[in-house]
Amino acid sequence: MTATISPPTTGLTDFRTSPDRYRHWNLSFEGDRARLEMNVDQDGGMKAGYELKLNSYDLGVDIELADAVQRIVFEHPEVRCVVITGSEDRVFCAGANIHMLSSSTHAFKVNFCKYTNETRLYIEDASKHSEKRFLAALNGTASGGGYELALACDRILLVDDRSSAVSFPELPLLGVLPGTGGLTRIADKRKIRRDHNDVFSCVAEGIKGKRAVKWNLVDRIAPLSRWDDAVAEMAGEMAEDVPASSDAGIALAPVEYTLEDDVLAYRHVTVKLDRPARHAAITIELPDVTGPANAAEALAAACDWWILRAFRELDDALLHLRFDLPEIGLVTLRVVGDHAVVRATDELLVKDEHWFVRETRNLVRRVLKRYENSAKSLYAVLDEGTAFSGTFLELALAGDRTYLLNDPDSPVHVGITAANAGVFSMANGLSRLETHFLGTPDSVGTVLAHQDQDLVDAETADELGLATFAPDELDWEDELRLALEERASFSPDALTGMESNLRFAGPETMETKIFGRLSAWQNWIFQRPNAVGPQGALKCYGTPQRPTFDYDRT
Amino acid sequence: MTATISPPTTGLTDFRTSPDRYRHWNLSFEGDRARLEMNVDQDGGMKAGYELKLNSYDLGVDIELADAVQRIVFEHPEVRCVVITGSEDRVFCAGANIHMLSSSTHAFKVNFCKYTNETRLYIEDASKHSEKRFLAALNGTASGGGYELALACDRILLVDDRSSAVSFPELPLLGVLPGTGGLTRIADKRKIRRDHNDVFSCVAEGIKGKRAVKWNLVDRIAPLSRWDDAVAEMAGEMAEDVPASSDAGIALAPVEYTLEDDVLAYRHVTVKLDRPARHAAITIELPDVTGPANAAEALAAACDWWILRAFRELDDALLHLRFDLPEIGLVTLRVVGDHAVVRATDELLVKDEHWFVRETRNLVRRVLKRYENSAKSLYAVLDEGTAFSGTFLELALAGDRTYLLNDPDSPVHVGITAANAGVFSMANGLSRLETHFLGTPDSVGTVLAHQDQDLVDAETADELGLATFAPDELDWEDELRLALEERASFSPDALTGMESNLRFAGPETMETKIFGRLSAWQNWIFQRPNAVGPQGALKCYGTPQRPTFDYDRT
Repeated sequence: MTATISPPTTGLTDFRTSPDRYRHWNLSFEGDRARLEMNVDQDGGMKAGYELKLNSYDLGVDIELADAVQRIVFEHPEVRCVVITGSEDRVFCAGANIHMLSSSTHAFKVNFCKYTNETRLYIEDASKHSEKRFLAALNGTASGGGYELALACDRILLVDDRSSAVSFPELPLLGVLPGTGGLTRIADKRKIRRDHNDVFSCVAEGIKGKRAVKWNLVDRIAPLSRWDDAVAEMAGEMAEDVPASSDAGIALAPVEYTLEDDVLAYRHVTVKLDRPARHAAITIELPDVTGPANAAEALAAACDWWILRAFRELDDALLHLRFDLPEIGLVTLRVVGDHAVVRATDELLVKDEHWFVRETRNLVRRVLKRYENSAKSLYAVLDEGTAFSGTFLELALAGDRTYLLNDPDSPVHVGITAANAGVFSMANGLSRLETHFLGTPDSVGTVLAHQDQDLVDAETADELGLATFAPDELDWEDELRLALEERASFSPDALTGMESNLRFAGPETMETKIFGRLSAWQNWIFQRPNAVGPQGALKCYGTPQRPTFDYDRT
Repeated sequence: MTATISPPTTGLTDFRTSPDRYRHWNLSFEGDRARLEMNVDQDGGMKAGYELKLNSYDLGVDIELADAVQRIVFEHPEVRCVVITGSEDRVFCAGANIHMLSSSTHAFKVNFCKYTNETRLYIEDASKHSEKRFLAALNGTASGGGYELALACDRILLVDDRSSAVSFPELPLLGVLPGTGGLTRIADKRKIRRDHNDVFSCVAEGIKGKRAVKWNLVDRIAPLSRWDDAVAEMAGEMAEDVPASSDAGIALAPVEYTLEDDVLAYRHVTVKLDRPARHAAITIELPDVTGPANAAEALAAACDWWILRAFRELDDALLHLRFDLPEIGLVTLRVVGDHAVVRATDELLVKDEHWFVRETRNLVRRVLKRYENSAKSLYAVLDEGTAFSGTFLELALAGDRTYLLNDPDSPVHVGITAANAGVFSMANGLSRLETHFLGTPDSVGTVLAHQDQDLVDAETADELGLATFAPDELDWEDELRLALEERASFSPDALTGMESNLRFAGPETMETKIFGRLSAWQNWIFQRPNAVGPQGALKCYGTPQRPTFDYDRT
């Protein structure tokens, strides 16, 4: 189920992998169970300068984990329970590698945390939307990010061997937060008592055995003598929660791209970089022909089903924009082609309950979230030749602004489909239309009333409230150019902060808390001398030197 | 209605003022209207080095505003509508003074923002709980914090004179956020369209006239020619929303204290500082006798009603801890006296609908929130002689941990009253018991079942889940000492981040978003060189130098 990946000659981070290339995980399957065993190659760090001891991880390890989760849902519909466990003796996972963190730039740390948070949310997404259950079978101590990974699973089984514990040593040992969703999940997912959370987050050695169960830090403990049976038993119970399937999966071929002359090119997605202007122009090209018409045809196309391919490409491009192209602050997006192609695909994508359609829909939802969770300004550009319909209109709504050409001589249309009615929910739990029109909820229905109608012309789209600005041909070029120049001139930090506050109005969820609250505090701490200064805790860890704090409270 | 305030000989910031001492506001009353006119004395800054031009504000200005809001609810029950307006021509308020901000330490900036956010939330609190309505009558441009103040009001009227606008110039001009609730309130209170929010937050000159109404940035506009009539008309409409009252208010005498030998002493509240240990021990002493027995007696006691006095003192002490005692990282709290005194007061405080009882209850709720929103670790200590009952048990639940002496030879009791049943809701909208027991909601009822019963002994309190640790006499001293030493040794930044994440589990509200999300991002930006570095936007503002940004997105 794997394919050759062309060597990365582009100088970009390679986010593509496959199980036969994993250096840090063993992925195996037996009946309706998958076993994902963490087995980190300590010499396999992405960069030089640190060893991945005790199953600690860096971005490379997490790229493989994200790949494994993705493959399980697409390649193994028969799997009902995934057991995540470790290969080391006495240690499940020691969390993110500290030497990697302390030698990384602030920007890398922030993006690394965001990526690992997304991976853990993808596990929860698969539990919620893909009929998989995840069991963290902690065969040894799970500390920091190791325990945060366990928290992302549905249930946690901890070996009861008098030494193995779950722990958050970040605060006492490193002066930072358990920031990969840890603090949010103990409070809001496992709903542990708040004073217990406080104690737990201050005890470097962690909590084990019966007390870990009593405090709800783990669901169950089992002695080493019957460990394998206990794991199998619990996985069996969990598998019963979801229906069995004998369907065969599809293979995910690697996403192929080239980077030449500052053009990052995939089949459907093209990213043109204008580095001096700090601007990237993304174009998504729709295919020429409609189809597939039903789930069977989609399944036959497999990972070449155009919508799956386009969104996998967009996902990869977003990761490059985040990790490899920090100088790009503003992304404009165009979708070009024929509205009819999207409309036909949305009919299938949104409504069909075939597992492959469902998984493709889930992936589109995840990519839309990754798009709006990127620290770049996002403008949709709707000019002649564009086809923002349905699923692709979501991309416009996911951004910060929409520029719509409203000129009778250059007709632009927008299409509303069932894809805009809530299937692609945002992190806040609302649809993008609901978030857009938070103050005028009736407008949602007014827009959706067009979903089985003809395309909406520019004038109507503007009246419906779908355009931020709708200049005519005379003003279009100047207005857009000035908007791009202005945006690119602002403080990038202030923009990131503003976008993080404005993009997720309305209700908060665990997900918005992780990215909005927990990550913001962690980013603050990651800037503070007490963590990252020459005598900060993160710098001193693993050296004979003890950290020196400025104890003033802020 | 004012009294002499003893001169501040303590070296502490003085948070006490009264209308006859205001330098920056004119407060007047006519019938059921109050008029609060911003009239900042540009030479009246709290510190040297900046001029408060264009009705810009510093902490001193906001202390007066907070005092005015407090006095309106306690001293003027007859007021139904408060008109907040300005005395300058063409300018309502230019927001926080930039030169003050750029010359302040990071810690001061953070605490200043927290205080101003609390003041604005107190306006909303008075609207929700005190039967007052607030009209922002913007007689000129309201920018930045000036518009944020308007957003805290129930309604906004803007003069339509071709030049006056509402604006958020922070991002384009200063490279920081409109962080005094601004971004949260445009998104979640006024529910403005998210792309409009994006545009508005990037246009330094702001938006005026009909477009401001259309985007819901203001509720109404009125020309200068009929400004006074329009203000009176709107205030009149708003006053009709709440019942009339002919009750007379009580006078709020200044809170008196002394600071000698590191003991900050009020009548009921004592704060003993152990600066080398970074520890402050707060003791709240209950009065010897029960009473008042009813609202009339409480009203006769006026601001000497002990519970009002005790919480005003605690409030003042908390502000000193935040602004004047940054080296204190850990606060322990004891309440000593007779449970019966609290029980009798809670009977009146929680249930009576007399306006003065209601306002005292509102103040207690606000102080409890200020307590748990302080960047200090908070431990309640329940040993012999303590009386954590009802309203004071809320203080234990507001903290991070509770240490309870469980020893038959030194009996400690805890008392449950109606005060624990939700009247003192937290920022997240839940009661403290509901937040404490988020994962085991039945425990709330089990605890509350004791509210009309006898006091709960230590053993039972521990079984009920009210104690984090409950050692006996043998272990007590060592365990507490080690706990304090350990806490005081941790990174203060990591503690602040952790506490901000753990204290407010469960639902999010505008208030938790302001303190958890918006403030965390602002604090991050306030650490970034793009804002505060030698060439950062905040440093360059008002100088001929243009800021130089590192444009990499993080």
